[in-house]
Order: sequence, then structure tokens, then C-alpha cells
Amino acid sequence: MNIPKSNYPRIVIIGGGFAGISLAKKLSGKEVQVVLLDKHNYHNFQPLLYQVSTGGLEPDSIAYPIRKVLKDFPNFYFRLANVTQIVSDKKMLVTDIGDLNYDYLVLATGSETNFFGNADMEKNSMAMKTIPQSLDLRSLILENFEQALLTDEMHERDALMNFVIVGGGPTGVELAGALAEIKKGILPKDYPDLDTRRVQINLVQASDRVLKEMSEQASRKSEDFLEKLGVQIWKDTRVTGYDGKTVTTMTDGLTFETATLIWAAGVKGALINGLDAKDIVVRGNRLKVNQFNQVEGHPEIFAVGDVASIVTEENPCGHPMMAQPAIQQGRNLGDNLVRLINGKPLKPFVYKDKGSMATIGRNKAVVDLPNFRFQGVFAWFVWMFVHLFFLIGFRNRMVVFINWVYNYVRFDREARLIIRPYKKDYSAFKD
Amino acid sequence: MNIPKSNYPRIVIIGGGFAGISLAKKLSGKEVQVVLLDKHNYHNFQPLLYQVSTGGLEPDSIAYPIRKVLKDFPNFYFRLANVTQIVSDKKMLVTDIGDLNYDYLVLATGSETNFFGNADMEKNSMAMKTIPQSLDLRSLILENFEQALLTDEMHERDALMNFVIVGGGPTGVELAGALAEIKKGILPKDYPDLDTRRVQINLVQASDRVLKEMSEQASRKSEDFLEKLGVQIWKDTRVTGYDGKTVTTMTDGLTFETATLIWAAGVKGALINGLDAKDIVVRGNRLKVNQFNQVEGHPEIFAVGDVASIVTEENPCGHPMMAQPAIQQGRNLGDNLVRLINGKPLKPFVYKDKGSMATIGRNKAVVDLPNFRFQGVFAWFVWMFVHLFFLIGFRNRMVVFINWVYNYVRFDREARLIIRPYKKDYSAFKD
Repeated sequence: MNIPKSNYPRIVIIGGGFAGISLAKKLSGKEVQVVLLDKHNYHNFQPLLYQVSTGGLEPDSIAYPIRKVLKDFPNFYFRLANVTQIVSDKKMLVTDIGDLNYDYLVLATGSETNFFGNADMEKNSMAMKTIPQSLDLRSLILENFEQALLTDEMHERDALMNFVIVGGGPTGVELAGALAEIKKGILPKDYPDLDTRRVQINLVQASDRVLKEMSEQASRKSEDFLEKLGVQIWKDTRVTGYDGKTVTTMTDGLTFETATLIWAAGVKGALINGLDAKDIVVRGNRLKVNQFNQVEGHPEIFAVGDVASIVTEENPCGHPMMAQPAIQQGRNLGDNLVRLINGKPLKPFVYKDKGSMATIGRNKAVVDLPNFRFQGVFAWFVWMFVHLFFLIGFRNRMVVFINWVYNYVRFDREARLIIRPYKKDYSAFKD
Repeated sequence: MNIPKSNYPRIVIIGGGFAGISLAKKLSGKEVQVVLLDKHNYHNFQPLLYQVSTGGLEPDSIAYPIRKVLKDFPNFYFRLANVTQIVSDKKMLVTDIGDLNYDYLVLATGSETNFFGNADMEKNSMAMKTIPQSLDLRSLILENFEQALLTDEMHERDALMNFVIVGGGPTGVELAGALAEIKKGILPKDYPDLDTRRVQINLVQASDRVLKEMSEQASRKSEDFLEKLGVQIWKDTRVTGYDGKTVTTMTDGLTFETATLIWAAGVKGALINGLDAKDIVVRGNRLKVNQFNQVEGHPEIFAVGDVASIVTEENPCGHPMMAQPAIQQGRNLGDNLVRLINGKPLKPFVYKDKGSMATIGRNKAVVDLPNFRFQGVFAWFVWMFVHLFFLIGFRNRMVVFINWVYNYVRFDREARLIIRPYKKDYSAFKD
């Protein structure tokens, strides 16, 4: 790869998500050369992907060019690259645009959808971890209604208007709420020739409550909000398969006929060949790192964010795979890398839990702060404020804000556009 | 197709562009049943596509859901459909979602890129008539720079950083201006490791001036603006071929090596099988219609907008293929269809030329009004105001406005995102 030699040590960061970007910012102006590699040329604000899928936001407003983040940083290089192999004994990366040597390597590769080995599920269900996936889902949702108009078979129509979301975490809950609002506010006007009261939104959760990482109070209130919006919640229900038409579960006799299964039931660390030995990979397919985010046995390799797991006695599963630990680890590692290069002792990572939140619909959100929990209208405003704050870029904030005000005042979501059709094969739904 | 029978006559409109939408609006509340068919579920504001290609606007802000336009109209049906055949003697359409009978048929199919039979050009060049095409171009432009970083061969780099636009109409001029501004304002910061002074923007025009449909004053000033921005204009130059790497011309010895040829040199009416007999198709592949937009020999079939040509002695080529004639014809036909159904005499279409305009860059536009011509800053504000005014939807206007203010103040275009890579085969550029 075409990166000039430098007298400074070279730090290669793989991934421009929350962890990679906050690390890069910390390294600006330091005596290091930084190379940031990503498969995309943009940072993507994952917490709002569900709003792209449901036509509430344009995709471009939650993406930000990585080159723009780095533009005033000296000694920074960005390359659009897919890293295929880490050759740690040569301190080298193999990528689709050539090899690259590093002095220090930071994996900030994030996470990917975990289908737990279910190939049918992976093939037939929709995931929502990237912008293209979210746009595919947006297209499919809209295409389903266009398709439903073409048949008089109620059975077929119902399957096309049935949405099954597997996974009751924030993604599943937020998506279910958004779909319920679309059912109520938009579908009757857009599809006067369909009986959209028959639209079903099913949220399937393996455990005994939704948002199980949050407080019981938040879970209870979310379930209450969802049910009021007309979402059918299936708790203690495990989905076993989906052939593109029928969802099977472990519950006796419980199946769903649907053209749309959204899989939001799990993520796993996005590992790279060469640094995936069994002894360093822990639960969730994450790399076991020490308190300095250092990978065991590789003092010059670090991992931050979703792909890293700081396993301690208090935290046997590592930190939650969310934006906050990623941002905080990125920042801490930035300081530590400078310390390491200057021969100073490193500072262990200490996670400051700032709480967590989820939104279900207009005026309906749940917030768990470390010492304070609240739900409803105020929580909803807090949720919006926090998300606007963490979005990168003034323009993005303005555009998202305008969309939210518009959607709120008008009960609308105008980005219901099929720009690139998903083109599902509907033939299985015909009798 | 699943459209209920009605006691009112059924008018089928093919196409939800400027002509189709303005016609539909006129028919709202009348004693007719209207079925609007389109290949897309959105109306697309074509005059701003070049800003999508150059990262200045998000695609969703220049698209508007057709169902939303029609939502309060009684007796209106929209279907996402591709019409493949018109069987006029049975008053029937064949589409990919089934057949449909009509009492009156209106073709508002618009236009498509005209490659004038050059298959290589069609295969290798980029067009910019639809949102997906504009997004492909956006991806390709950005991918070219990422690719240019991977080589030290100046020859290869130069070809990757060379943009050839064929066609000096509004699309070509506006795109060339936008690329020149990107070269100046964005590339040096985004690609500090490329010598972006070597980026070339070539605008190739077959005739002796750009914007040849506008006044000579507008042409001269546009050329002046473009040259000041660093665009190389090639007048009286005909492009003969492009194999994906080398552009050949009829001018002796003049070729261009480029990874990106944008074809903006012509459009043609988008005809449908069954209504394309030689005697009713005139110059530009358009349907010859009378002053009532009626297709000769088919009193129940009409055509409006780009696909229609009202050929008169004063106007041997029909009206320009632009938004204004389409909007005005749509409105006039709406009134005429009601008159026709009520047995009243039809009113001939009279085109009110409201002038034309093009923008070259910040503070640089040219406006030809029927009795007044001006260029520069004021023209640029007029251009923006008019385009905001004709955009459909309050939200779209707000988002476009915010983007324009932001881009103006910050000299920026933040939607430089490769969401769906174009993946050009660059192998021909390797030695």
C-alpha cells in the first residue's frame, strides 16, 4: 500500500466506527503516523439505522465522510480497504489493496449480525447493521405493500403485511415501534385500497422481557408502550428457522407466515483472520483484551469497541456492545498509545456508565441513568437530544433535526422511497 | 390488475414525473377514476440530480413519494408497474403486474438517455437521468480518487482524475461547474496525498457554444464562468467512442484517457411498444400529438411532457424537453379531459415560455427571461429560489435549503459517501 515512510511510529486503525474515530481524534497532532482503514468511506451512526429503514431519515444524514473527520490532522492517511489477514509475527496486514506494515495495530472493527450458524436465517432474513442493509429493508417493507395490492387472497396479503422482528433489544424495540407508527399514521392514507388494520407487527424475544440489558422498569414500560401501539410481543419464544415464508419457533404450534423477518437477535465481534485463535476469542466472538485494551500475547496489538472484551470478575461478559464503551475505550487508548511510545506507564480503562435508553415512538422513550430512571415524554426529548449530540457533523444534526420536527408535527415519514428495489422472490406466497 | 370497477371513466396515466403529477392534481375531485402507473414509487426532481452526483444533496431530498401526492384524492389508484405494451385497439395495457383496461390513456413517460445507437458508449459511460444512476456516478467519482491513491504511475492517476462530460446543455454545464468546485474546495483537503491540481474537467460540446438553447449572452457568460473555474471546454467536438478507458473524437488527434465519461449529450422520448409506429414518432423519438396533446389516430390516447411533441410551423421540433412544458401540458390536459368527458370543446395548449436558467457554481448562474437576461450572483439566487419553489414537499425544501446554506457557508458537500460501490473494472488502466 502506498503510504509514505515516516520517522514516527505507524499506528494502523482498522475501522472508522465510534471507537476508531474517537481514537483517531485523540492521536491528532501527536508524534505518530496514523493509517485508518475502513471498508466504507463514511462513519455510520448505527443507533439511527432503524429510522432509515422506516423512512424517517435519509441515509446520508446519519453517515459522515471519514476523510472529513481526518482532514486537518497531520500525518493521517485514510484508505478504503478490506483487511483480509493479520500477520502478527511480521507486523503486517494483508488487504484487498495491498500489504501494510504497522508498528501498532488497533482493531476497531465493531460487530456484525450473529445468526448463530443458522444458514437459512442468514439467507432469508433481513439484517440492519449497515446502511445498505437498512435501505434494503426500507425497500422490502414498501415493496410488500405494493405486492399486497396485487392479490385478493387474504392469506397471501396477510403474510405480506406481517412483520416479524426477532430480538427485543433496542434495535428490535425501536423498529417495532416505528413500524407500528407507520401502520397507524401512514399506511391508511398511502394504501386506501388495502385493509391496513390487518398489518401485524410481531416482536419475538427469547428471554422473559424486552430490553433485558436495561432496568425492569424500562422493560415493563416499553412493553406497555409497544402493546398500546399494537405490537404483539412474544416473550420466552425462540425462533428456530425461516425459509423465506414461514417462521418456526420452539413453542408448540407457533409459526408465522411472513415475507419479512428482521433479525435483530444478536451481534458478534467482527474478527479478522490471523488474530482469531481460540485462546484469545471469548464470548460473543470478541477479542479478549486487558485493561489497556491490549490483546494477550501481542503487546503491539489493541482492540477497542464491540470487537474487544475486557473480561473482569465484575464484568465476565465485557462491556456492552454499544457506542459509549467504544467511544470511551477509543479515547483512553489514544492517550495510552502516546504514553506507550514515550515509555510511560499505561492507564487502565475505566468505564463510566452513562446509562442507556431506547425510544418506542413519539413521546415514548425509556431512559435508565445510573441513579435515575424515567419514561415517557421527557425521556423521549432526552433521547433525541442525546442522539443529536452524538451525531457527527453540524449539517447532519440540522437535517436530522428538521426531519424529526417535520415527522413529529406532521405524523409523517417522507423517505418512503424504493430507490434500489430489493426484489424479493414472492413466488412462495402464491398458491 | 386489481383496480375496482367504477361508474366513472377510467383515465390511466403512465409516469409520475412533472407532466403526470400536474395532470393528476388537476383531475382530483373530478368525476373520473384515475390510475397512475410508474416504475418508481417516487417523483424525482431531475433538475437537481447533478447535485446528488456531486455530493451536494442527499437523493431522498429530491424524491417525493407519489402515493403521498395522491393521498387525499378520491378515486385515485397508484400501482408500481412497468408497462410493456399498449394494445390500443383493445384499450388495454400489458404490464409486469397484469393487464389493465383504460377509457383514456395518457403517456407521461418522459425521456431517457439517447446514446444514438452507440452501444460501447451505452455500456461504458455514466448517464444521469435517474436517482440510482446519479448515485452510481457519485460512487464512481469517489472511488476514482481512492483508486488513484493506489498507484504511483502518473499516467494512470491522471486518467482516474480526469472527468469527461459529453454534452454542453444544462446538465453538462451544471455538472462541470460542480466538479470544478469540488476540485477546488474539497479534494485538496480530502486527498492531501494526491496532487489534485492535476484533476481535469473536460466539457465536450458538439456545437459552437454551450447552452445552445439559451441566449448567446448566457452561453458566453457560462463559458466564461466555467473557464474561470478551470473547466476545459471543447466546442465543435464530436465524441465517437469510449471503450471504458479512451475517448475518441472526430477531431484529429484529440482523445482523452479517463475512467469517467458522463454522457449528457442527448435524451429521447421513452416510448412503449404498441404505440411507436413510424408515422406517429417524430424527431427525438417523441410522439406526434396535436394541440390538445392527442395522439394522431387515437382520440382516447394523449401524450404530455418530454415524450410528446406538438409540432407546428413555429415549433418544428416541438417544445423543449424540460419541466415547464411538461407541467403546463399536464395542467391543460387535465382540464381538457374533463371537457372531453362532458362533451365540451377542448382548449389548445399554449406554451408560456417562462424562460430558462442554469447554474455554474456559487454566485454564478445565467437566467434568460423572455424579455430580460442576467447573469451572476442575482441570477444564482433566482435559480435557487425557483428550484426550491418547484421542489415538491415542505420537508424536501427545508432539507435542500439547509444543505445549500451549509454548502455555501462552508464551501462543502458532505454527501460524499460511497453507500453502494459502483465497482468499475479498473484493470484497463494498469500497465
